[in-house]
Amino acid sequence: MAETIPHWLTKQAHLDPDQTAIEYENGGSITFSELERKSRAFASKLASLGIKKGSHVALLSGNSEKMIISLHAISYLGAVAVMLNTRLTEAELTHQITDAEVSIILTGEDERFKAMSFPVESYAMQEVERFAEMEVKLAEEINLDEPFTIIYTSGTTGFPKGVIHTYGNHWWSAVSSALNLGLNQEDKWLMAMPIFHVSGLSILMKSVIYGMPIFMMEKFDPERAHHAIMEKGITIISVVTVMVQRLLRQLGEEKYPKAFRCMLLGGGPAPKPLLEEAEKLGIPVFQSYGMTETSSQIVTLSPKDALTKIGSAGKPLMPAQLKICGKDDEGIGEIHVKGPMVTRGYYKNSQASERAFSDGWLATGDLGRLDKDGFLYVVDRRKDLIISGGENIYPSEIESVLSGMEQIKEVGVTGVEDQTWGQVPAAFIVKSREVSEGEICAYARKFLAGYKIPKYFYFIKELPRNASNKIVRSALTDQMDE
Amino acid sequence: MAETIPHWLTKQAHLDPDQTAIEYENGGSITFSELERKSRAFASKLASLGIKKGSHVALLSGNSEKMIISLHAISYLGAVAVMLNTRLTEAELTHQITDAEVSIILTGEDERFKAMSFPVESYAMQEVERFAEMEVKLAEEINLDEPFTIIYTSGTTGFPKGVIHTYGNHWWSAVSSALNLGLNQEDKWLMAMPIFHVSGLSILMKSVIYGMPIFMMEKFDPERAHHAIMEKGITIISVVTVMVQRLLRQLGEEKYPKAFRCMLLGGGPAPKPLLEEAEKLGIPVFQSYGMTETSSQIVTLSPKDALTKIGSAGKPLMPAQLKICGKDDEGIGEIHVKGPMVTRGYYKNSQASERAFSDGWLATGDLGRLDKDGFLYVVDRRKDLIISGGENIYPSEIESVLSGMEQIKEVGVTGVEDQTWGQVPAAFIVKSREVSEGEICAYARKFLAGYKIPKYFYFIKELPRNASNKIVRSALTDQMDE
Repeated sequence: MAETIPHWLTKQAHLDPDQTAIEYENGGSITFSELERKSRAFASKLASLGIKKGSHVALLSGNSEKMIISLHAISYLGAVAVMLNTRLTEAELTHQITDAEVSIILTGEDERFKAMSFPVESYAMQEVERFAEMEVKLAEEINLDEPFTIIYTSGTTGFPKGVIHTYGNHWWSAVSSALNLGLNQEDKWLMAMPIFHVSGLSILMKSVIYGMPIFMMEKFDPERAHHAIMEKGITIISVVTVMVQRLLRQLGEEKYPKAFRCMLLGGGPAPKPLLEEAEKLGIPVFQSYGMTETSSQIVTLSPKDALTKIGSAGKPLMPAQLKICGKDDEGIGEIHVKGPMVTRGYYKNSQASERAFSDGWLATGDLGRLDKDGFLYVVDRRKDLIISGGENIYPSEIESVLSGMEQIKEVGVTGVEDQTWGQVPAAFIVKSREVSEGEICAYARKFLAGYKIPKYFYFIKELPRNASNKIVRSALTDQMDE
Repeated sequence: MAETIPHWLTKQAHLDPDQTAIEYENGGSITFSELERKSRAFASKLASLGIKKGSHVALLSGNSEKMIISLHAISYLGAVAVMLNTRLTEAELTHQITDAEVSIILTGEDERFKAMSFPVESYAMQEVERFAEMEVKLAEEINLDEPFTIIYTSGTTGFPKGVIHTYGNHWWSAVSSALNLGLNQEDKWLMAMPIFHVSGLSILMKSVIYGMPIFMMEKFDPERAHHAIMEKGITIISVVTVMVQRLLRQLGEEKYPKAFRCMLLGGGPAPKPLLEEAEKLGIPVFQSYGMTETSSQIVTLSPKDALTKIGSAGKPLMPAQLKICGKDDEGIGEIHVKGPMVTRGYYKNSQASERAFSDGWLATGDLGRLDKDGFLYVVDRRKDLIISGGENIYPSEIESVLSGMEQIKEVGVTGVEDQTWGQVPAAFIVKSREVSEGEICAYARKFLAGYKIPKYFYFIKELPRNASNKIVRSALTDQMDE
């Protein structure tokens, strides 16, 4: 049965009107009741543009209060928000806007001119604020089966597909996380991820579902994030590997406050040396596994296992299930997941939906294995798998080893064509100190079989990353000429 | 869409096998993995009695490990548990067993012989344990739309009706409570309520949904409950008014440990003097409002409002809604509630279901009002309302005032027929010290309008209470001859 709940923002504004909903870096903040009032007013203005139940409204903006208000306003109108990644090219954005049948684009100030070339009307959010309010009935309830957001998968490879998230997907994601991490009255989550990504969006959803303040950064900056953790009562932060690395450098000899209880690490397998360093420093890093299709984490290492299962992404959250299909001799196979936080499909792409889903299970395209206690170890993206002379080589394994060298700051590995072996691994290295190919090979040989030692080394200035800071392995080979 | 989750006990046993599920008064305990193993084994034995998906199995037992195992076993078979109140008469039980189409009764040791007279086969749980295990496929998943339990409403008045709880009702109830009270890693809930009541059952459901240990008492005993709070790391206890009174007497000059964070008070409006006393002693009493139909509390005073809104039951939980219908001049009307924890109806009683439900809203039959901030004050059961000379008199208001007298230990008020006024209030008083009618009237006049002063006073030894310790006002008049 489709469950119905009161509109979550109206509800939080009623339950706890004076509770802080969002705190800003400049020291300002907004309460749930102010956020509700502004969102309702914005909805009434948006309505004058013809936006109504079922309309697709694209948001093209970096993190800002206006973006959050726009998102809630869209929900008050029963419309669907298409979350656009500001870092994409015009061609990529045009594809998503067309594919998602967007009728109007709302932009931040910075994206205003970019949006003008799109085949759909666009308005700066600031512009809409000057509109008159229209009399319109705003949603009092939320039907959990209805769609709320569409996010195109990061598209590091392959053609982007629009993942539809229902309100229920977001609700279950937030509740599942609370059942795993607990929910304390003093919780405050640092959101340094873009809201147009599910990683940031899911923090915003937790805020309105828990009635929890979030500390919003426009974008991740290690110094300012560090300062926030030290001074602003942050209890949880969501991060990807590179953010952990940068935060550790900021930390130096300091210690995080005791209230800081969780660094929730997503965005792909993390190098084990980094996790071990964090553990030594007493930093509560909880690895997790998830993707846009699962509305953020679906597998997380819980507090009690964080120390004993370093390197594991943990166990599937309470309402979620996981199985490994097509296992090889080492037990590695494709990760399949199921649960109420998993999308029911891609927008207008039944072919992709049918390929990904069977019997309620989503084939993630990621490779992993379970240890004897049922803990998940994510091995790699299946599409990043290098097959060399019939042997499976997982780039993340090589990256994890090489990143243990002091002279290496960051490393990405990908397969390149090879006449003899089909593919061989190539390493793209950002050095922190001088180091030679020979030294790296010698180091790698201590940990890796011969066929896993990269055949090519490229020393580059910076790894290609997407908007959520994940390494784009498919773009590594573009750096070969550097 | 009907949501599916993994079987919650299997899941907890996987997530946290060594976590304590239940702690007993004798110092023993059982982990989630042991509980899972025993419940599965018991299910395989029960299957040999022909119990299968959809079967109705009655449980007639006081709180015990066996009862908990039986309940989970029933769920592994996809059967439905009909929770029988051990304090009912043979005739009352026979009615429920017949009405609920029970095919088998499982009893505790004490109820073994009582059950033999019923028109349905019965087995002691202990007996079933000696059966051979049958090979049977146990549920791996739970569909939240399916029924799990049937509980007949307390039946203090009127004809009892079987409230069907789906798995989803229990799930949402537990999650809603966590969103309100928070969820800490060290939480341990003291269950001193009978499991055959929704008050006890809901604690058991929270245990398996949160992965939280509960401390189980066979029945409430103030001395032993006090000891448990002081010594056993209890963080939350569910209570009714009389239990608070008894616990306060036990407390004396002591202070509860700091970890003890919530005394969750249900079972009807509590006398304000008691709440004020608790507040003075620094005891975190959170009033709540709920009933069998709402799968336990649906309105609760949250931690932050507990001190400023004494006497209020709080606001409806995050996914719940509330409205007051048919308000009088003082804003008092019937409480209607809606939410995914609310039953969808009574078993095979479409007439009662239709009367109670309209458009997803449940008419509770309780009277209440909302203050300007939206906090609920439950005034009384509508059926307990006394109408005297056209004036509405709420027994709980008089009870609340009289219980403020030191000489009065407990008091129940009900209406008795009167030739002049239609009805007048009568007070049934349990004294703690000597006191006269005159003194009581003089005291009452300070707080109550003349027409609310009881016309009759009966001094009795004990108030009639039902199995969940609520005063049965309809039985008060039976005490007139005492």
